[in-house]
Amino acid sequence: MSKPDISFIGLGAMGFGMATNLVKRGYAVTGFDVWAPTLDKFAAAGGKTATTPAAASVDKPVCVCMVATAQQAQAVLIDGPDAAAAALPQGSAILLCSTVPCGYVQDLARQIADPNGPVKRPDLLLVDCPVSGGAARAADGTLSIMAGSPDAAFNAHAHAKSVLADLADPEKLYLIAGGIGAGSNTKMVHQVLAANQILSGCEGMGLAVRLGLEANETTLNTLLASPGHSWMFGHRGPRMINNFQPIASAVQIIVKDTAIITSEARRMGFIVPMTSAVENVMYDAMARGYALDDDSSILRVYTNGRENVPPAPASLTADDKIKLVIDLLKGIHLASAAECLAFAHHVNLDLDMVLGLCINAAGGSAMLEAHGPHIIAALRNGTAASGWAPAEGEETLESIYKGLEAAVVIAQQIKAPLYLGTQALTVLRMALRSSGPKASSIAAGSVVKVWLE
Amino acid sequence: MSKPDISFIGLGAMGFGMATNLVKRGYAVTGFDVWAPTLDKFAAAGGKTATTPAAASVDKPVCVCMVATAQQAQAVLIDGPDAAAAALPQGSAILLCSTVPCGYVQDLARQIADPNGPVKRPDLLLVDCPVSGGAARAADGTLSIMAGSPDAAFNAHAHAKSVLADLADPEKLYLIAGGIGAGSNTKMVHQVLAANQILSGCEGMGLAVRLGLEANETTLNTLLASPGHSWMFGHRGPRMINNFQPIASAVQIIVKDTAIITSEARRMGFIVPMTSAVENVMYDAMARGYALDDDSSILRVYTNGRENVPPAPASLTADDKIKLVIDLLKGIHLASAAECLAFAHHVNLDLDMVLGLCINAAGGSAMLEAHGPHIIAALRNGTAASGWAPAEGEETLESIYKGLEAAVVIAQQIKAPLYLGTQALTVLRMALRSSGPKASSIAAGSVVKVWLE
Repeated sequence: MSKPDISFIGLGAMGFGMATNLVKRGYAVTGFDVWAPTLDKFAAAGGKTATTPAAASVDKPVCVCMVATAQQAQAVLIDGPDAAAAALPQGSAILLCSTVPCGYVQDLARQIADPNGPVKRPDLLLVDCPVSGGAARAADGTLSIMAGSPDAAFNAHAHAKSVLADLADPEKLYLIAGGIGAGSNTKMVHQVLAANQILSGCEGMGLAVRLGLEANETTLNTLLASPGHSWMFGHRGPRMINNFQPIASAVQIIVKDTAIITSEARRMGFIVPMTSAVENVMYDAMARGYALDDDSSILRVYTNGRENVPPAPASLTADDKIKLVIDLLKGIHLASAAECLAFAHHVNLDLDMVLGLCINAAGGSAMLEAHGPHIIAALRNGTAASGWAPAEGEETLESIYKGLEAAVVIAQQIKAPLYLGTQALTVLRMALRSSGPKASSIAAGSVVKVWLE
Repeated sequence: MSKPDISFIGLGAMGFGMATNLVKRGYAVTGFDVWAPTLDKFAAAGGKTATTPAAASVDKPVCVCMVATAQQAQAVLIDGPDAAAAALPQGSAILLCSTVPCGYVQDLARQIADPNGPVKRPDLLLVDCPVSGGAARAADGTLSIMAGSPDAAFNAHAHAKSVLADLADPEKLYLIAGGIGAGSNTKMVHQVLAANQILSGCEGMGLAVRLGLEANETTLNTLLASPGHSWMFGHRGPRMINNFQPIASAVQIIVKDTAIITSEARRMGFIVPMTSAVENVMYDAMARGYALDDDSSILRVYTNGRENVPPAPASLTADDKIKLVIDLLKGIHLASAAECLAFAHHVNLDLDMVLGLCINAAGGSAMLEAHGPHIIAALRNGTAASGWAPAEGEETLESIYKGLEAAVVIAQQIKAPLYLGTQALTVLRMALRSSGPKASSIAAGSVVKVWLE
């Protein structure tokens, strides 16, 4: 099959990698970015360049849009005479790879197709296909892609799927039922885990430091080998112990995603207590001047000024301390797994797909793997009492609660804020209190009942 | 009636005022404090001094204990040969005015009376009587006192009640049914409001500043005249706009109380999502080095570094901005009123008494006055649907939710953390979502259902 000429809008860290990957694979790619030096770099990498989105898009059967926000997507695709959509030829596909709210991408589809709208182009195929995986995988063409358009028009398009296949790891191209918005919703619920687990890594390592442990390889590796493991901690942890270098993902990047999660939750009347707590800490980190620093450096929110508060009780051994941190992480990851899957359920996503995708992408954690299936069963079966019993060998909710409580108690003694730990404790307690006399024997996954109406 | 000789243990800011007030009223008061210079000052004010709690207590029919923590109370009253309890004469009363957990004062009563315990003094009367009102009212003898002992032994004691009456405002001496622990529990639930409303004042003024309003008298007076009013904001507000001077109540003081609230809640399996959020911010303030600063200065947590984040949208007028802050405060104060009264209900306090006391002491707010009666009715009637309708002229929960939501939306645009505002939004949303089709017409006080099991 011939490779279509491509218009590529947005050559930031992710977009540049994706576009040059397509060049390497033999596509003729015409790039556009508002930052001119990037265009020179892209030309040096074998790309063509244009000075407006419209100019890049003339005669291109495929337009990939990888700008940073919904506002930018609106500007480059729709608004004004230099925007891309109106310039594309009949039947082109727009692959919107940016992370945007579901509500926006659905509105964008209406704007494009509306015969009375700004561009009047019902012939264009909009694909809602956010990506995950970071700049290195973007450049390798091995991203995770969540494409919400396996409908007739998508399947009939000559190039949409093949271009996505050249951007993605073959095992990580998810074609998601639900049409326009399902891709963005999938990315959104994945980012619930990403955001919570970037911060839980900082909160866990922060507690370790406040307890007197060193933020070093020994501490990190012990935590990563425990049930407190998360993919994000494995990824950010090495930077936490290396002066937050290199700057691989700036604080302001994940802040865009937490804003999508909390604003979409508000729009739907859904609660995201864990991600709301994350968002406040992220904003505090920005005010502290960390916006452009690597997000592993949010560790400083927890460790700065520790000379102003009491040290750890001398009675605690190093093993005690590690156990407290592991139990903190377990409690947080259980609550964030429930928040992620409950939100996925609320937006009608296939829960097994979401669980598999999150484990395969950046949302994985030991708790998600252990308790995700039970959380899903509870979501499907509602509050039926039979749904709450632990499976063979599965940890009880009370057991995880007690471990988390012990961490919160010690943190209180040393005046260490645990923004996520205390929120998870409230969530776990709410699930326990509504379980009556069976509370001591319900499965950990039952925590998701807090999100059920 | 003759005035008994008094042993007074703990001559800090509050204790010194209380002890010198008793001296002025004609009592012979023998003071003890670990900090020797205070003893010289007390002698200069007409008191006698002693070098140990035991020495101060010999032959004293009444011992007032006003140390800072339960640990200190244990040390000065029970532990070791120099402690007070064993030294007191037959039938003395110990007035424990310190703010301590209910669990501690109940344990203390057992320790004192236990025939196999450390002091074996069942003849002593322990009165659980924490106070509120600040150092100025302590010195005037016009404190609020919450005494949890209107039982036969208390009423029969020759001096316990008359000494309390000389420390308290006559309208603010609360004799609380429930025995030992009821006084401490009453103080504890009052402090739910105190802690939340110290921080809500900072969060509200912080949002005002981030929106571009000046932290000045005009802004403060407008907010104080609104439904966002709280007693604490009226008290701390003037210091917020005066460089946090004078230092009237240090951050570390309210931190002791939040720790009692959250640890007692954990002990009982009760949730305090609002106060847990408060506590994390207080610990952050301590790490920033504010522990000894006036608690109004926590405003800095919200305003520092605002040059690093976006300014307010230019489209907002000054009136728009004030309205957003008022609606933020309303939402927070509704949620904290519900948390306070639900906790009072959980520990079996008389809810009308608690409401009256909080309004008369430092816990008052316009929202508490407006919605407290409905919250109480909802707590008494459980989840009966008939309990949730708004009274004539009462605001709906949805209306307060929408106001709060608008504040959270704007705060997100300018990256302003709203630790209490976002938590209140989650709480209000949980109450709305469980109200089904009636959600749009239920009364604001119905929010308390989140705390019902």
